[in-house]
Amino acid sequence: MNPDHSGSSSIVDGKVIVLSGGVGGAKLVLGLSHAVANDQLVVVTNTGDDFDHFGLRICPDTDTVLYTLAGLSNTELGWGRANETWTFMQTIKELGGPDWFNLGDADLALHIVRTQALKSGKTLTQVIAQLAQQLGIGVSLLPMSDQPVHTRVNTPNGQLAFQEYFVRDRCEPAVSGFEFAGIAQAQPNPLLLNALAATPAVVVIAPSNPYVSVDPILSVPGMREAIKHCGAPIVAVSPIVAGGAIKGPAAKMMQELDVPCSVEGIAQHYRGFIDGLIIDQQDAASAEAIAATGLSVRIAPSIMRTLDDRIALARVTLEFGREITRDRGGSLSGNE
Amino acid sequence: MNPDHSGSSSIVDGKVIVLSGGVGGAKLVLGLSHAVANDQLVVVTNTGDDFDHFGLRICPDTDTVLYTLAGLSNTELGWGRANETWTFMQTIKELGGPDWFNLGDADLALHIVRTQALKSGKTLTQVIAQLAQQLGIGVSLLPMSDQPVHTRVNTPNGQLAFQEYFVRDRCEPAVSGFEFAGIAQAQPNPLLLNALAATPAVVVIAPSNPYVSVDPILSVPGMREAIKHCGAPIVAVSPIVAGGAIKGPAAKMMQELDVPCSVEGIAQHYRGFIDGLIIDQQDAASAEAIAATGLSVRIAPSIMRTLDDRIALARVTLEFGREITRDRGGSLSGNE
Repeated sequence: MNPDHSGSSSIVDGKVIVLSGGVGGAKLVLGLSHAVANDQLVVVTNTGDDFDHFGLRICPDTDTVLYTLAGLSNTELGWGRANETWTFMQTIKELGGPDWFNLGDADLALHIVRTQALKSGKTLTQVIAQLAQQLGIGVSLLPMSDQPVHTRVNTPNGQLAFQEYFVRDRCEPAVSGFEFAGIAQAQPNPLLLNALAATPAVVVIAPSNPYVSVDPILSVPGMREAIKHCGAPIVAVSPIVAGGAIKGPAAKMMQELDVPCSVEGIAQHYRGFIDGLIIDQQDAASAEAIAATGLSVRIAPSIMRTLDDRIALARVTLEFGREITRDRGGSLSGNE
Repeated sequence: MNPDHSGSSSIVDGKVIVLSGGVGGAKLVLGLSHAVANDQLVVVTNTGDDFDHFGLRICPDTDTVLYTLAGLSNTELGWGRANETWTFMQTIKELGGPDWFNLGDADLALHIVRTQALKSGKTLTQVIAQLAQQLGIGVSLLPMSDQPVHTRVNTPNGQLAFQEYFVRDRCEPAVSGFEFAGIAQAQPNPLLLNALAATPAVVVIAPSNPYVSVDPILSVPGMREAIKHCGAPIVAVSPIVAGGAIKGPAAKMMQELDVPCSVEGIAQHYRGFIDGLIIDQQDAASAEAIAATGLSVRIAPSIMRTLDDRIALARVTLEFGREITRDRGGSLSGNE
C-alpha cells in the first residue's frame, strides 16, 4: 500500500493490530497503513454484520476496509465502490426482487467471487487474503473469525437481523441489547492468534461502533483473553466526539441503552480491557475524570476528514501505544 | 404481448406449440406472438444449454426468448439485453475471476432472481412464468423440462460441456456427436403435456439448431411420442438456407457429422417425425425431392430480418399447418 514507508523506520517496531468495523475504522486503518510498513499492519474486521443476500455472502465491514485500502471506496456514499454503476439493482426492481439492500454492479462481482470461493471450501480468511492481494493490498486483512457470526438487534418489537435494522429500517427501532448468534461456535482467526502470540507493538481499537463493530470481535470465545494477554498496550480511539457519533447509530444506541453518550461512556464500555483512550480535543474537559479511573488518556484531533487527518491520528495512536509501553517499563515495542 | 390480436380471429384456432432454441427460434416466436392471441401460444424452450456459472443458473435459450418477447433483446450481440452495462464483468476480470462467459449487469439480475427462486424450491417452470409475467409477457413460456439436462458435445479431444464448446471454444472443435446428460431422469414439462393432450392446432419446430436446440427437447423421455400423437400437424422451419445456417454452428455440425448440409439434410433429420417442412425460396429446387419422400413442403421467404419478416413467416407456418390438417381431412384446427 505504501512503498514510501517500506523498510523505513516506523513509530513502533513489531505488529500493529487494529480491530475495525466499517467506515470510521477504515479511515484509521488507512492512516495506519501510511504510518507503518505493510508487514507490520494486521487489520481485524468485524464479521458480525456479514449476511447472505441474493444467495451471496456479503461482508460490509471487511469490504469497506478492503475498498478503502485499495483506494476504491465510495467516499460519497460511505460504502461500496467509487465509479459504481447500478444496472443490476434497477433490474432487480423491474423483476420484483428485494431492493432494500443496494449492491452496485462492481461490488456484486466481489460478492460473487467470494461466495464461489467459500463454496469451493476456502475459508473466509483465505478468500479475503486472495481478494486483498488481487486488489494490490499489502497489509494483512483478517476477518475476526472464519465461523459465521450474526449480530442481532433486540428491539421492543422483537429481534432484527443486523442489516434489517441498519439498512432496511435505517436504525430507527430503539435497541435494548444485542445478540451475536453463532458466537459460541466461532474461533478467533488463527492468523490473528499467531500475531498476538508474537507480542505485537500495540493493539488499536478503531473508532468504530462499540456495540455492533467491536463487541462482536471481542465476544469471539478466547479473543478477549488472547488480546488482553498479548503483552501489548490496548489503545482505543473514541468513536464519540462531543457527545455524538461521527457516523452511524453509536450515539443513538448509547442513549437507548441508558449509557452516557460521551467519551466517559466509551471509557466505561471498555474499562478493564483497554490501557489507553484517545479522545478528541472537544472532549478535553473529560480527560481528568477518565484518567482518574486509571486509564491513560490522550487528547488529539480525531475527526478524520482528510488523508492527512487519518495519518496524523494513526501516528498519535502509535505514539500513545509506545508511551504506554515505555511507562510500563516494558521494552517490547518502541524504537527508542 | 399483442393486444391488437387478442380476441381477433387467428389463422388457426387452438394452441400453437413452438419448440425453440435461441436466436433463430426466438425470431419466429416473436412473429407467432403477433399472429395469434396470447393464450394460444405455448413456447417450449431448450434447456440443454442451461448451466451453472458463478453459482447462478443460466438458461441461454429460454432467456433469449424471454428477452425477445419482452422487447429487451440485444439485437446487435444476438444474446443478452439491450442497453446493457458491463461493470460486473470488468470487475470480475480485475478480481481474477473467470471471464470467458459474458454476463451483463442487467442480465445478471435475472440469473440471480431465478437462482434464488429455484433454491427456494420453485420449479424452473414456475420461475420462468414469474419472470415472464414480471416482464409483461402474455404467452406461455415453458422450459422443456423442470429436471436439468446438460448437452455435451463429443469432439476428437473428448467431451465438452455445451457452453465450453459454444462460447469458450467458439464452436471451433469438430463435433462427432452429442450427449444429453440427465435426459433419462427428465420429464416433459407437465404444462406442455396438458397443452398437447388438448389437441393443439399445430406444433412448430422453429428454425433452431436441430442437434443442440431441438433434439434435446425431443429427447426428453415421452416427449417425442406426446408430440407425435397430439393430433396436430408438426411443421418445421428449416434452419438451413442455401446450404448454410443463418446463425450458429448448425451447418458446420452437419458437415462434421457427414450429413448433407442442405434442406434435404434437415428433412432427413426430422423424417418420420414432422409432417411438413418450410424451406426458403433459395432452396426451391429441393422441394420436389423432399416432397417425394412423403413430406409436405412449403416454399417461403425464411430469412427474418425485420419484424414484418417474422410475422409473415409465422403466418405462412400457421397456414401451412392448417392446410396439412385440412388435407388430412381433420377438423381439429383451422377456422374455416
